[in-house]
Amino acid sequence: YDQAGHAVLPTVYERTTAAAISHEAVNLGQGFPDQEGPQWLLDAAAAAITEPHTGPPNQYAPGMGLPVLREAIAEDMLRRQGVSLDPDTSIMATTGATEGIAATILAFATAGSQVLCFEPHYDSYGACAALAGAELVGVPLTAGDFRPDLDAFAAAISDRTSLVLLNTPHNPTGTVFTAAELEQIVELAHRHGARIMCDEVYEQLILDPEQQHRSILSIPGASDIAVAVSSAGKSFSVTGWKVGWVMGAPALINQVRGVKQFLSFSSGPAFQWAVAQGLRDDQGYLSALRSELAEARNHLSTALDEAGLRPNSPGAGYFLLADISELTDLDDAAFCDLLAAQVGVAAIPVSALIIADQIPRNHRLRRLVRFAFCKDRHSISEAAQRLQQRL
Amino acid sequence: YDQAGHAVLPTVYERTTAAAISHEAVNLGQGFPDQEGPQWLLDAAAAAITEPHTGPPNQYAPGMGLPVLREAIAEDMLRRQGVSLDPDTSIMATTGATEGIAATILAFATAGSQVLCFEPHYDSYGACAALAGAELVGVPLTAGDFRPDLDAFAAAISDRTSLVLLNTPHNPTGTVFTAAELEQIVELAHRHGARIMCDEVYEQLILDPEQQHRSILSIPGASDIAVAVSSAGKSFSVTGWKVGWVMGAPALINQVRGVKQFLSFSSGPAFQWAVAQGLRDDQGYLSALRSELAEARNHLSTALDEAGLRPNSPGAGYFLLADISELTDLDDAAFCDLLAAQVGVAAIPVSALIIADQIPRNHRLRRLVRFAFCKDRHSISEAAQRLQQRL
Ligand SMILES: CSCCC(=O)C(=O)O
Ligand SMILES: CSCCC(=O)C(=O)O
Repeated sequence: YDQAGHAVLPTVYERTTAAAISHEAVNLGQGFPDQEGPQWLLDAAAAAITEPHTGPPNQYAPGMGLPVLREAIAEDMLRRQGVSLDPDTSIMATTGATEGIAATILAFATAGSQVLCFEPHYDSYGACAALAGAELVGVPLTAGDFRPDLDAFAAAISDRTSLVLLNTPHNPTGTVFTAAELEQIVELAHRHGARIMCDEVYEQLILDPEQQHRSILSIPGASDIAVAVSSAGKSFSVTGWKVGWVMGAPALINQVRGVKQFLSFSSGPAFQWAVAQGLRDDQGYLSALRSELAEARNHLSTALDEAGLRPNSPGAGYFLLADISELTDLDDAAFCDLLAAQVGVAAIPVSALIIADQIPRNHRLRRLVRFAFCKDRHSISEAAQRLQQRL
Repeated sequence: YDQAGHAVLPTVYERTTAAAISHEAVNLGQGFPDQEGPQWLLDAAAAAITEPHTGPPNQYAPGMGLPVLREAIAEDMLRRQGVSLDPDTSIMATTGATEGIAATILAFATAGSQVLCFEPHYDSYGACAALAGAELVGVPLTAGDFRPDLDAFAAAISDRTSLVLLNTPHNPTGTVFTAAELEQIVELAHRHGARIMCDEVYEQLILDPEQQHRSILSIPGASDIAVAVSSAGKSFSVTGWKVGWVMGAPALINQVRGVKQFLSFSSGPAFQWAVAQGLRDDQGYLSALRSELAEARNHLSTALDEAGLRPNSPGAGYFLLADISELTDLDDAAFCDLLAAQVGVAAIPVSALIIADQIPRNHRLRRLVRFAFCKDRHSISEAAQRLQQRL
């Protein structure tokens, strides 16, 4: 995208999917599951649409979202995070996390200010910051273990920082930020008068028991400066439903609502209604999903390792990162082109998820490729085989 | 909303609905039908959600929207408007017209420029212009017959104008812009290097045979500067589905896509799929809907007239305007409060749909109240009775 936030190209996900199709490659690019969400959830949405008075009407949902969804989210946050939120004023439904991110950045990032994020980062951050007239500045996660470098963060944040963008569990590294890390970030944000947005869409996808997800809203001192964004897409394998939400103090949510009501007004009442049911009782879906994801991760990780790509060990989420530096001198984007065309596996170059002009060409973050493992057994096996045989 | 586009209040629709509920008033405020769309359309969406391989998966739709929807829109535009559009590059699905409007304004309205609209206008225009750092300037429609005043428009447009926002059929006046009017506007926009966005969401709701809707894209000379926005919400009585689209030359659509892909990415694949079927064969739904709407309009119009409120004669859309000047000295907002509380009918003050500091307090546009007639027979009858008996 250019300085005004006007993208010249489709997103990297769309470009990768197009390359996958043209080369008949296994698509481990865009992060969406190729297995559908649970049938009872799909049935609940369908019933709300076709049977009058079962769910909400097929008309505008309230701008804040259906009350039943907001109540289910509040209960879930209390149960899992010990965070108490008023469903009427502290939770707002959005058109996926993407809209929650856009509305939050447009609400809090002031023109001429800096917006801080850790690198790599979700690609909409830069476009939205640019639309707000702000500059996105990245602080690289540490090499090797991909943890927040708090000294570098402390050096980067300043009174010019209007907003800090966090993401835990982190896409694409799988890093789960610890309470101690989040506390220090909150403390620094407070000191510089910055707000925080924390993207927590992978919160339900903790794959290793030693990892513990902490919502930013559970961190002492965060409540008056931070909002959390989450979504049902990843938790229930319905990324197309675009049921997301923003949570935080009423005054902050009110500011985000002020923007969001003019981006889409509201969306997806039947989907909101079904997701409310899923949050109240997932019927064992989430733990089964976590097991499947962990298995897919392990399978793909082994194949990457055997192919000479050095995978990381993500404790959460949808993605593996592979270090290509021992295998090739190509840059990550060129390597992904080759991977799609000659190996038949499509993946995302991490350089598409960093601020290119802030990170030198030979930096470790530019030697990484992201593989989505949220795919069915057949796709993972086929990709594993191709990587082992053709690379 | 404040200068930065940050709304302080919920939209006027939400505030009116809240007032309607608290006073048990008939809600003729927000423009959504209280009868659901056709059952076959609802069933099509439900089948796409629950039955694998019937429709698209419940995962991210392509950023441009499902191909089947874009093809159906292209066919519909050719059939009704004689406009030929390439479904791959000239049509993009959005999360309702609201997102299409937001993305278009953010793409084309440059910081420091002026955005021009006719008054009254849809309320998201001002918020989105403010988010883009542009100033919204209004040109009042003519008193009495609510037509574009082209002399005033010619006087208002300048080289500072980046974007002209049109809306035909017009909300809230029901005015259908003529080809001659649109041609002059296109000509003036060309002369000043401005782009045009035309909101055509009521295009299918022409209620009087002598009216003819002309899409901006059918106007000579418009193709390189104009995009049209439309939606399925009003045509098929599914306002909650939020299936909208933006149409125009590939270079323009590409610019709008650049913003839109970071607002929601994409949304509602099952709904897009069902709407494609509706556009291909509406099974007589649209003509039946038009008859019902015309009947509701006539019924409510008579009641308003008998109650001493002077209704206009809209040839299209969802709304009647009533002139309150002979009945009361109250301003329109105060009159709407009284109407909800004491008469039991909720309506929208037109002053909420104008740029308050540009239109003097006693201007004719501030003596108008908007009544939605897209409501079922029972609601219209009850509202009519209350107006006749209690006002
Ligand atoms: C909105 S498309 C991007 C999906 C995703 O979260 C990812 O692949 O990182
Ligand atoms: C998006 S809510 C507004 C609905 C509407 O189009 C109107 O009432 O004018």
